[in-house]
Amino acid sequence: MSDDPVFRMHRAGKISVTPSVDVSDAQSLAMAYTPGVARVCTAIADNPDLAADYTWVGSTVAVVTDGTAVLGLGDIGPAAAMPVMEGKSLLFKRFANIDAVPIALNTTDPDQIVATVAALAPSFGGINLEDISAPRCFEIEDRLRALLDIPVFHDDQHGTAIVTLAALRSAARVAGKELSQLRAVVAGAGASGVAVTRMLLAAGIGDIAVSDSKGLIYQGRDGLNPVKQALAAQTNRVGLTGSTESALHGADVFIGLSSSQIAEEAIASMAPGAIVFALSNPDPEVHPDVAARHALVVATGRSDFPNQINNSLAFPGIFRGALDVRAATITEHMKHAAADAIAALVGDAVTPGYVIPGQFDDRVAPAVAAAVAAAARADGVARR
Amino acid sequence: MSDDPVFRMHRAGKISVTPSVDVSDAQSLAMAYTPGVARVCTAIADNPDLAADYTWVGSTVAVVTDGTAVLGLGDIGPAAAMPVMEGKSLLFKRFANIDAVPIALNTTDPDQIVATVAALAPSFGGINLEDISAPRCFEIEDRLRALLDIPVFHDDQHGTAIVTLAALRSAARVAGKELSQLRAVVAGAGASGVAVTRMLLAAGIGDIAVSDSKGLIYQGRDGLNPVKQALAAQTNRVGLTGSTESALHGADVFIGLSSSQIAEEAIASMAPGAIVFALSNPDPEVHPDVAARHALVVATGRSDFPNQINNSLAFPGIFRGALDVRAATITEHMKHAAADAIAALVGDAVTPGYVIPGQFDDRVAPAVAAAVAAAARADGVARR
Repeated sequence: MSDDPVFRMHRAGKISVTPSVDVSDAQSLAMAYTPGVARVCTAIADNPDLAADYTWVGSTVAVVTDGTAVLGLGDIGPAAAMPVMEGKSLLFKRFANIDAVPIALNTTDPDQIVATVAALAPSFGGINLEDISAPRCFEIEDRLRALLDIPVFHDDQHGTAIVTLAALRSAARVAGKELSQLRAVVAGAGASGVAVTRMLLAAGIGDIAVSDSKGLIYQGRDGLNPVKQALAAQTNRVGLTGSTESALHGADVFIGLSSSQIAEEAIASMAPGAIVFALSNPDPEVHPDVAARHALVVATGRSDFPNQINNSLAFPGIFRGALDVRAATITEHMKHAAADAIAALVGDAVTPGYVIPGQFDDRVAPAVAAAVAAAARADGVARR
Repeated sequence: MSDDPVFRMHRAGKISVTPSVDVSDAQSLAMAYTPGVARVCTAIADNPDLAADYTWVGSTVAVVTDGTAVLGLGDIGPAAAMPVMEGKSLLFKRFANIDAVPIALNTTDPDQIVATVAALAPSFGGINLEDISAPRCFEIEDRLRALLDIPVFHDDQHGTAIVTLAALRSAARVAGKELSQLRAVVAGAGASGVAVTRMLLAAGIGDIAVSDSKGLIYQGRDGLNPVKQALAAQTNRVGLTGSTESALHGADVFIGLSSSQIAEEAIASMAPGAIVFALSNPDPEVHPDVAARHALVVATGRSDFPNQINNSLAFPGIFRGALDVRAATITEHMKHAAADAIAALVGDAVTPGYVIPGQFDDRVAPAVAAAVAAAARADGVARR
């Protein structure tokens, strides 16, 4: 491993804690620590809101996982999830100057995860839930959102949904179609599939058929968990049954959020001007070169093809905007404002090969942050 | 507040999270994050010990409080405790290059604190408990030590005890007395009073009388909690009753770890060559100038008088040594080795005004770390 550049890069971790004040002598130490610090403590005890001004809490996010749904690797446990959480912390800093702390939990029990994160909350300005498997992730996020007065955001759900919606808005423009006219097929009913579907419905998409490993989800299908039952009630208006591929016949949009594969013939059977987002990583549901033979717009999760749909376009700016105004929560409006801001950056420059900004487009995080902060103010959840 | 240099220093907090690798382009990002990071995750999933090599876990300590016993301020809550925890993180970095993360918990229930810290454990190489009130602190530490295979160290107990023992070894040399001949009085039976007493007993001190707010602790006194009952059984051989001051008559050592005040006459009544450690902060139990009229050696917790007895001489090196050898726990031997190492740095240079190294003596943390690591190896708790 010592010869491998990836392992070499990860040696001793990818982040560190750095003093932002100098404590090189007794005088500065007496200000930063006892006895001087006592005055800051007393001021915060009198007015807890000051913690966001006089500690790092105002710029800090916990990146919390239980290690059950890490990348495409699945349930690999908390220790093995840490390199991903550290990578996420890196991105928070790089793109939004947020101090993010990776927290990998030694429990997969929703009650214990909720209790643990609730106990940690005074230490952080926000909670980014990460790589927690469905359907537990929905319950855990819902309960924490209800309990806490700081933003709680499961990035695998909402980060993916926001960036996907942004890309779809641009792609629909290229195809000359309205969102309300689109019929979409979403493969995958895990965290991201459910969240993408919910967000597209809220954005007014025409109809969506969602599939899981057992095929299309429809009302009355046996063995649906409550989350999928709710999906079935809101999607698949015509009650399609059968395979994902069968539903693609005449569809305008395919969004792949599973690790399944889609045959070329199914892509070929889509409507003219088709939009294909094959987002599984590292292996897209259909190779982008194959999809491009039949579709107008093709996007993947990969950096080595055009139109990379990547959460890092959303989560840094989302939390930056929420922290900037000390938002008590992240509303639906804030998420849609983020998607709109990302789509607006593409604007009239949109082409089939450019429906989403690049990962290193430095306009993105500030634009998302500003839109999210404005939406928080409009929603009355901003506290400054 | 904005004109106050202490508040200005604390503005936005005193620490930040900093990338230790560069992710300025798609290629480096693809190594630090997806898809490259997946290989590191897989390697750790196969062998969880590698997390200490390829994440920051190997150099990271959580500084955990519930905000119930912060400085001399008492139970001020988690938000108000954060500036102290950040200060501690600063010191960990400054003295031992340890990445310490402040964690202030929104619960004071021992069961919940234990469950929360146990859940966090995979994210850190060690747990520094801080400013948790007695007697809960004893139970919480004991239970976490039993549960976890990483060092758990309540600094208010053991840090204070280690540095006090180190100073007492030097002071006894100056006084020409053996530890086993000393009769000591410890004022205070909170976290530090109990831990100092236990450590001095283990070091073979002659006898100790301990007092709390109700006076001296003796076997059979009404209303003693289990921790104080155990103290009563091990201390105060002659069964003194009454006040702290009454016990000082003829005593060799006074150690103040309360916020009580001691009259000059009581100090004057001590044995010739008396040793007075008046450690309450910011107001010592007896003013050091007053104590010096009667005692041979006087120490305080303050930086503006000679002989500052400060935990920061111990905890950075303790954790550095423990992390360096990946110790599974911190044994009694490791704590005594730390005290011996600190006393050895004073060595033959000892005088009544120099019984303990200064806070910025850069020899201290490395010497403590080396002694702690060697003791961990000797005790069979080192894992590398």
